[in-house]
Amino acid sequence: MQLGMIGLGRMGAAMVRRLMSAGHECVVYNLDPEPVEALAAEGATPSSSLGEFVSLLKPRRVVWVMVPAGAVSGVVDELTSLLEADDIVIDGGNSYYRDDMARAADLADQGIAYVDAGTSGGVFGEQRGYCLMVGGTDDAVGHIEPILADLAPGVEGVDRTPGRTGEPSQAERGYLHCGPPGAGHFVKMVHNGIEYGLMAAYAEGFNLLHHANIGAQEVDLDAETTPLREPDAYRFDLDVPEIAELWRRGSVIPSWLLDLTAASLVEAPTLDGFAGRVSDSGEGRWTVLSAVETGVPTPVLSAALYERFASRGRDDFANKVLSAMRYQFGGHHEKTDDGTGVGA
Amino acid sequence: MQLGMIGLGRMGAAMVRRLMSAGHECVVYNLDPEPVEALAAEGATPSSSLGEFVSLLKPRRVVWVMVPAGAVSGVVDELTSLLEADDIVIDGGNSYYRDDMARAADLADQGIAYVDAGTSGGVFGEQRGYCLMVGGTDDAVGHIEPILADLAPGVEGVDRTPGRTGEPSQAERGYLHCGPPGAGHFVKMVHNGIEYGLMAAYAEGFNLLHHANIGAQEVDLDAETTPLREPDAYRFDLDVPEIAELWRRGSVIPSWLLDLTAASLVEAPTLDGFAGRVSDSGEGRWTVLSAVETGVPTPVLSAALYERFASRGRDDFANKVLSAMRYQFGGHHEKTDDGTGVGA
Amino acid sequence: MQLGMIGLGRMGAAMVRRLMSAGHECVVYNLDPEPVEALAAEGATPSSSLGEFVSLLKPRRVVWVMVPAGAVSGVVDELTSLLEADDIVIDGGNSYYRDDMARAADLADQGIAYVDAGTSGGVFGEQRGYCLMVGGTDDAVGHIEPILADLAPGVEGVDRTPGRTGEPSQAERGYLHCGPPGAGHFVKMVHNGIEYGLMAAYAEGFNLLHHANIGAQEVDLDAETTPLREPDAYRFDLDVPEIAELWRRGSVIPSWLLDLTAASLVEAPTLDGFAGRVSDSGEGRWTVLSAVETGVPTPVLSAALYERFASRGRDDFANKVLSAMRYQFGGHHEKTDDGTGVGA
Amino acid sequence: MQLGMIGLGRMGAAMVRRLMSAGHECVVYNLDPEPVEALAAEGATPSSSLGEFVSLLKPRRVVWVMVPAGAVSGVVDELTSLLEADDIVIDGGNSYYRDDMARAADLADQGIAYVDAGTSGGVFGEQRGYCLMVGGTDDAVGHIEPILADLAPGVEGVDRTPGRTGEPSQAERGYLHCGPPGAGHFVKMVHNGIEYGLMAAYAEGFNLLHHANIGAQEVDLDAETTPLREPDAYRFDLDVPEIAELWRRGSVIPSWLLDLTAASLVEAPTLDGFAGRVSDSGEGRWTVLSAVETGVPTPVLSAALYERFASRGRDDFANKVLSAMRYQFGGHHEKTDDGTGVGA
Repeated sequence: MQLGMIGLGRMGAAMVRRLMSAGHECVVYNLDPEPVEALAAEGATPSSSLGEFVSLLKPRRVVWVMVPAGAVSGVVDELTSLLEADDIVIDGGNSYYRDDMARAADLADQGIAYVDAGTSGGVFGEQRGYCLMVGGTDDAVGHIEPILADLAPGVEGVDRTPGRTGEPSQAERGYLHCGPPGAGHFVKMVHNGIEYGLMAAYAEGFNLLHHANIGAQEVDLDAETTPLREPDAYRFDLDVPEIAELWRRGSVIPSWLLDLTAASLVEAPTLDGFAGRVSDSGEGRWTVLSAVETGVPTPVLSAALYERFASRGRDDFANKVLSAMRYQFGGHHEKTDDGTGVGA
Repeated sequence: MQLGMIGLGRMGAAMVRRLMSAGHECVVYNLDPEPVEALAAEGATPSSSLGEFVSLLKPRRVVWVMVPAGAVSGVVDELTSLLEADDIVIDGGNSYYRDDMARAADLADQGIAYVDAGTSGGVFGEQRGYCLMVGGTDDAVGHIEPILADLAPGVEGVDRTPGRTGEPSQAERGYLHCGPPGAGHFVKMVHNGIEYGLMAAYAEGFNLLHHANIGAQEVDLDAETTPLREPDAYRFDLDVPEIAELWRRGSVIPSWLLDLTAASLVEAPTLDGFAGRVSDSGEGRWTVLSAVETGVPTPVLSAALYERFASRGRDDFANKVLSAMRYQFGGHHEKTDDGTGVGA
Repeated sequence: MQLGMIGLGRMGAAMVRRLMSAGHECVVYNLDPEPVEALAAEGATPSSSLGEFVSLLKPRRVVWVMVPAGAVSGVVDELTSLLEADDIVIDGGNSYYRDDMARAADLADQGIAYVDAGTSGGVFGEQRGYCLMVGGTDDAVGHIEPILADLAPGVEGVDRTPGRTGEPSQAERGYLHCGPPGAGHFVKMVHNGIEYGLMAAYAEGFNLLHHANIGAQEVDLDAETTPLREPDAYRFDLDVPEIAELWRRGSVIPSWLLDLTAASLVEAPTLDGFAGRVSDSGEGRWTVLSAVETGVPTPVLSAALYERFASRGRDDFANKVLSAMRYQFGGHHEKTDDGTGVGA
Repeated sequence: MQLGMIGLGRMGAAMVRRLMSAGHECVVYNLDPEPVEALAAEGATPSSSLGEFVSLLKPRRVVWVMVPAGAVSGVVDELTSLLEADDIVIDGGNSYYRDDMARAADLADQGIAYVDAGTSGGVFGEQRGYCLMVGGTDDAVGHIEPILADLAPGVEGVDRTPGRTGEPSQAERGYLHCGPPGAGHFVKMVHNGIEYGLMAAYAEGFNLLHHANIGAQEVDLDAETTPLREPDAYRFDLDVPEIAELWRRGSVIPSWLLDLTAASLVEAPTLDGFAGRVSDSGEGRWTVLSAVETGVPTPVLSAALYERFASRGRDDFANKVLSAMRYQFGGHHEKTDDGTGVGA
C-alpha cells in the first residue's frame, strides 16, 4: 500500500527502504532535501514541501511521522492542517504517551485518526525488522496492518514459544495493537525502562569483573580508608571481552544487548574511546514517573536511570554536601584514591 | 575420555547423558542409588560406594562433583582421601569461589588438582549445552578440555560476533579457562549477579504493565493517600503475555530470560500459581559482597537482591519501624489499600 | 492580627490554639461543626457556613486553608467566590506545588493573593511550633508575617549555627519566604522526600539489629538456599529499644525521628501492634518525580519510597514473574523460609 | 580510676582530656612523642615505650587502644605480650566486629579480657561526650564502667524519652553494654551504616533544591535529550543555606547532621571548596555485608554507600559499557550536557 514518511533520519530512511523492499509505495519528505534525493534514487517518490507531500498521497492518506520527540508537535500541527477527515497520522518516534492521548483527542475532532507506533530496533531494524507497539482505534490500526506486518520482523528467526499453537498472533509476527491511543508508546516506554535496567545489570557486572584484580594493587593505609581485608581474594586478571563472548552461549543471560556488548569489547577491549557520560532520552524517565504515580516499586529501573544522571555529574552537589558533613563531624579531608588530599 | 560423576541430581544426570552422547565413558555415583541405576541402563558404569567409584576410574582420574553447595566440602574430603597425586577433582556446583581457593591450596599439597567449573544452563543444558566458566591450573584444565568442549554448546546456534575471525576461541565454543582456582566460580558468581539484575528489570517492567489500568479503579479519598492526579493516564488494559511475546522480536530487549517469561505467561497469564516468595541461592549475595569489598557500585544488582529478601518478608520489622514513626509524629494509623485501618 | 482558619482537623485546630495563645484573633470554620464549637469555647470566633465565615473577616481578609490535599481545590474555589481583591488565601496543607502555581495565577486574575505555606511539625507543632516554608508575593507574605512568626518555633530551643551573627534571620525563627507561589510547597516536598530517606535509613538499621541473632537459629540445608557461612558471627541478642535510646546521646545520628523511634520502642519493644503497611502521602512521590524530571539522582529517596510501595504488596506481580522465571530455567519451586514449598 | 591510653590522635587525645577533667588518672603512649608531651603538660603520665607504658599501670591494668583500624592488630599483639592475666584491653577504634571476636577468643586463652567499645562523637566528643557501644564479658565491662560513664555524655542535654521512668538506664547515660565481645562494634557498625543513609538523604534533597532553577536555563534540542516538559515548574532560585537553617526548627527532619550541614553552608554557600570525592571508612561497607549475609534488605544504606563509590569514579567502566551499548544499537554518540559530543 501507499505510505508517506516524514523524517528521513537514521530510522525513517531505513524504514522506507524496508517497506519498499516489501513492495510498498513510499512518498518521502524531509526538511533537509539530501535524504529525499537519496531515497528517490532507490525508488521512493520525493517531495520538496509538506504541501507537495500531502498532494502526492491518495486518500485515505497514511502518514508516518519519524522525527525527534521535541519536533513531533510542530510537524503534526502543520501536517494535519493539510489532511482530510479519515486520514491517518502515525507517530513512530519517541513521544510521551500522554502527548499521544492529547493529540489523538484533538485530531479526532477533525476526523483524523492518530496512531502511536512505538518503534524499537535501532540501526539494525532495516534487516532485522522493527518491533512495533501500537496504540489507536481498531479501524485505523486495522487499516495500516499491512505496513505494520512488513516493518515487523515476522515469525522467522525466533523459536516459537512452547505452548503457543495455531496461526501466529500479531505479537508472534512482531507487532501488537496494544490498546487505544497512547497504549503503544506506553508499552514502548516500559520497554525502554526495562532496557535501562538490563543495560545497567550488565554494566555493573562487567565493572566488577574489571576490578577483580584490585587485590594485586598496593593501597596505602590511612585512617580514612580501610584496607582490603583479603587482597588475595581479588587477584583475578580476567579477560572481559572473552567472558562477554562466553556468556552468549548456554548461560542464563544471553541477550541481544549482550551480543552488542561482546561486539563492542572486540572492537575496544577496555572501551577507552568512551568517556562514560551516558545520555537518557525520555522513556527511562517516563517509566519511573509512571511507576511513582501508580505506586509500583521499580528500584532497579530507577537505579539504572540514576546511574546515568550521575555519570553526567548531576550528583556533584550531593557529593559536596557529603564531604562537607564529613569535614564537620570528623575533620575528614577529602581523599583521592591514591591517598592524597583533594579538598577542604 | 573417562569421567567420574558424583551427584546425579537434575544437573549431574543431564551432564552425564550429554557426555555419553558425545562418546565419553562415565562412571557414576550418587547417595540415593536410583539415578545410578537409571543411568546404568543408558550405558553409564554404576558404582555403589565412593570406594568402588574410585576403583573404577583409571589414573589420571577425573572426577566431576555436582552436589549442593553445602555438601561439596564433605564429599570432596571423603573423595580425596581415596585419590592419588595427579588426579583431578572438578567442582561443577555453586561453590563460593573463596572455598575453591582454599580447597585448591589444600589439595595441591597432596598433588591433586582442583578445578572449579561454574556451570550455567539449568534444565535446558542437556540439549542446549552448558556454559562453563573454569578456574584451575593450565595443566589440569588442559587435560579435561575434551570434557569441557563436549559439555559446552559449541559454536552452533549463535551468530558469530562481528569482528571475530579465525579459529573460534574457547569462549566462542562455550567454555573458558578464566584463571587460577576460584576464577571459574568468580565469573559464574558475577554471571548470576547479572542474572538477578536482568530478571528484576523484566519483573519490574511487567509489574508496571500489570498496573497500567489502575486509573480505572475507584480509590477512596483520605488524608493519608493522595488521589491519582491523572487517572485517565492509567486506563490501559494491557495483554501482558502478548507483550512479552512481542518483545522477543526486533526489540532491544530480547533475551533467553524473556523467552522463559513469555513461556510462563502462556501457561498462566496472571501467574496465579506463584506466591511470589523468591529464593536466592548464594551467588547473587556473593556478587554484592564482592562489589562492596572492592568498592564497585552495584546499585542495580543489589536492588534486585533486596527485592528478593523483601519478597520473603525480611523487611517486616523495618516497615513496622516506619509505621511506628508515622504514628508518633503524625498520629497516622496504618491503612490498607482499601482504606481500612490495619493497626496501632 | 485576625486570621480565618478553614479546616479544624488535627493540624488546623492546633494551629488556631497556638495563634490564640500568641494573641491573634481567629475566625474558624469546619464542615463538621464539632471542632468549631470546641474552639469557640476556647475563644475562637465560630462560623457555621463559608458565607458567615467570610463575613466575619475584616478586609484585607487573611484565610488559612488547612484541609486534605484532595479537598483544597473545591474549598478554594468556593472560598474565593466570596472574597474580594487584595484578600489573601493561604494553603497550609500538602498541596502539590504545581497546583499552587496554577491556583496563584488564577487568583491573581481576581486580585486575590495566594500563599502556599508548607507546614511541618505534626501533632507536636502546637507546643514546638511549626516549620513554615512559604511561597508567594513579597506583598502577601510580608502582610502575614506576624502570623508566620507566631506559628513558627522562634529562635529558642535550638543552638545558633556557628558563623551566624546579628539579628536572627527568618529561617532562624522557623519560617522562610522561599520564593514565588509554589516555592513553599516545593521546599516542603523536598523536606518530606528527605524525611522518607531518613526514616528508611533508621528502619533498615534497626531491622539489621533485629536480625543480628539469626545465626542462633537452625536453618535447613537445601539446594535453593545457601547456609549462613559463619553463623557464629550472627549470635547477638541485642536490646533494640536500649540501642535506640543510646544513639540519642553523643552519636552522629541523633535526630527528632530517632527520638520518636526510641519512644515507640519503649511503648512496644517489638512493635507488634503494627502490621508494617506503610502509607505515603504525596510529597515523597513528588520529590522523586521532580528529581527524575530535572535529572537529579536520588537513589536513596527513591529506594525509601519503593520500600513503602512494596510494604503494601505492590511488588507482588513482580515477585511472581521472578518465581516463574526461576521455575522455567531451574525447575525451582518456591520455598518458604522454613523450607517447605509454597507454590508452582 | 587509672586508665592507659595508646594512640593520641584526634580522638584519643580528646578522650584523655575528658577523662582527666572527670578526675581519672591517665597514662599515655603514642608512636610520635609530640602528643604525649602535650598531654603530659596537661596532667597525664607520659611514657616513651610500650614497656614503660605497661610498667606505669597498676594491675588490674586497663588499656584503651585508639589507633587506626589497620593498626589495631599489631598494637594489641605487642601490648598483650606485656600484660598479665586479668588485665583489660579496650579497642575503641573502628575495628570490624569479627576481628574483635577472634581477638577476644585469643586473649581469653591468656586470661586477658578484651572489650570492644564502638565510639562515636568525632571532634565534638570532648565537649559533648562520646556515645559508647560496648561488647565484652560482664566482668570486664563492669570493671571499666566508671570510665565509660565519664566518657559518655550523661543524661544532661537530651530530653528524657516519654514512657521512661526511674533511675536512668546505661543507654540514657550514653553508653551500653550491648553483649559479648564484638557486640559493641557490631552496633557501632550499624550506627555508621545508618549515618551513611541519613547523610545521603540530606545530600540528595539539597542537590534537588540546588537544581530547582534548571527550567530557567536554556537547553538545546536534539534527538538524544528530551527537553524539560514543563520548564516553568523549575524556576525556583532557592537559598539553600537558609533552607538548611529553617529545617532545624519545628520540622520533621532536625538532626545533628543537619546542624552540621547548616554550619557548612554558612561557611561556604555553594561548597566550592569540596571536590565531592567522598570517602568511606569500613563500617558502611560492613553494614551492607552483614545485611546481605543475613538476608536483610537495606536498599537505602546500600545506595548511600554506592553513591560514595561512584563519587570516586568507581563507576567509570560501567558507564563506558553503557555508552558502548548505546553506540552499538543506536549509533548514539556520547553527549555532554551542553550538547557537544565527547566520545566514540
